[in-house]
Amino acid sequence: MSRVITSLANAAVKQVRALHLRKAREETGLFLVEGLRSVLEGVELGARPRLVLYGGKLADHAGLARAADAADDVAEVSPAILAKISRRDNPQMVLGVFDQASTPLDGLADGVLVGLEGVRDPGNLGTIIRTIDAAGGAGLILIGATCDPYSVEAVRATMGSIFAVPVATVTQDQFLAWRATWPGRLIGTSLAARADFHGAGYQPPCLILLGAEQSGLTPALADVCDDLVKIPMRGRADSLNLAVAAGVMLYAAV
Amino acid sequence: MSRVITSLANAAVKQVRALHLRKAREETGLFLVEGLRSVLEGVELGARPRLVLYGGKLADHAGLARAADAADDVAEVSPAILAKISRRDNPQMVLGVFDQASTPLDGLADGVLVGLEGVRDPGNLGTIIRTIDAAGGAGLILIGATCDPYSVEAVRATMGSIFAVPVATVTQDQFLAWRATWPGRLIGTSLAARADFHGAGYQPPCLILLGAEQSGLTPALADVCDDLVKIPMRGRADSLNLAVAAGVMLYAAV
Repeated sequence: MSRVITSLANAAVKQVRALHLRKAREETGLFLVEGLRSVLEGVELGARPRLVLYGGKLADHAGLARAADAADDVAEVSPAILAKISRRDNPQMVLGVFDQASTPLDGLADGVLVGLEGVRDPGNLGTIIRTIDAAGGAGLILIGATCDPYSVEAVRATMGSIFAVPVATVTQDQFLAWRATWPGRLIGTSLAARADFHGAGYQPPCLILLGAEQSGLTPALADVCDDLVKIPMRGRADSLNLAVAAGVMLYAAV
Repeated sequence: MSRVITSLANAAVKQVRALHLRKAREETGLFLVEGLRSVLEGVELGARPRLVLYGGKLADHAGLARAADAADDVAEVSPAILAKISRRDNPQMVLGVFDQASTPLDGLADGVLVGLEGVRDPGNLGTIIRTIDAAGGAGLILIGATCDPYSVEAVRATMGSIFAVPVATVTQDQFLAWRATWPGRLIGTSLAARADFHGAGYQPPCLILLGAEQSGLTPALADVCDDLVKIPMRGRADSLNLAVAAGVMLYAAV
């Protein structure tokens, strides 16, 4: 059904491997998706794979045929090449390369949105995208210098939800300008807040805003929130993992 | 204040590096803690470091002096050795080696407990321990074949909470025998359940029981739950990250 690539020196393989680098992702506008299930999630949501690579064991798999039919290009590769591309000993047997999608701020639907300022850990970012999808959130706004939602680690943590959740990436100034006219309620989280997160008004449209893992929200963003709330810390730990905090807030809101 | 180790061949350094291996942790009963803050968390909770290693930059740090005073042995090491031990380019400047603690089932306090069956990802496990601490949960029960709460990755994700949360590690048979006489309510999570998690009776003592990342609870454990509940999935994602699910459940309970 397609050609077989056997060399790491192959140009397509080299281009896919480069997608671990943010620079290469920004230059090409592409990203890497691992696993047949996630690739099919993209296809079902209308994304067309630029390239599908698969291990020979899956050659007769019906799901692979669906992914391949939708793709611009398809090739079989050896397990060793899959492992090199994924940087894993036990790689997924299907890899897909897709175009990155970007949603403008005014293209986000009303509902419960999440905003993240300065998030640094791609696993947290990907897990939050998965949680927004599961909770039925309307989308995500990334504010300021954040890690890349299209990094291999972040996409892996989304478990396919990268295709289902609209993501807008903006500067702080762009966010503040949008917020000035957006009619929804802005609920920020802060360890210094007194109000419990349960008491905030989450009727949509609303935006749950969380700061970076170490530093929290910057004053510029905290100042424009309608509510500042905290998730109570009852033990010795003084904070939650960011993805856990986002999940607790989202399920309080929806 | 202490000797200086400059060689990777040093016996103490070799023993600490081996703590990345589960076999070495089980044979010695020791585990590795990274970062002054987490080491001090242990000291403040009464754990005595067997060994503290630190980078020379911190030699005059008051916090380090507190950790060193509590320790059996202290040594300065080069940043290169710290990086090799932590397997990180930017290692923490203080490392501590502690004795593992194990809590028997009947040593757990009443309150809100969490049970995990077959958890596989050390990052999830560590994050759940951190969340139990933050939410004021009473402890954790690990059931069956799980990853090791004392692995370097799990301990790192606990952010020091490994010292604050009692952990009991048991077989499924031991758990079922304990459960038969334990007076609390057992609330299991299942994607197949119909009841929403908000409706369960969380008055303590209660135990929130979650299954493994891929497979969920086994029937043997699901059968002994008082309630089986689900966290609703409103989008295309069909599950949450395990640590997020545990956090959502815990903050519904406490």
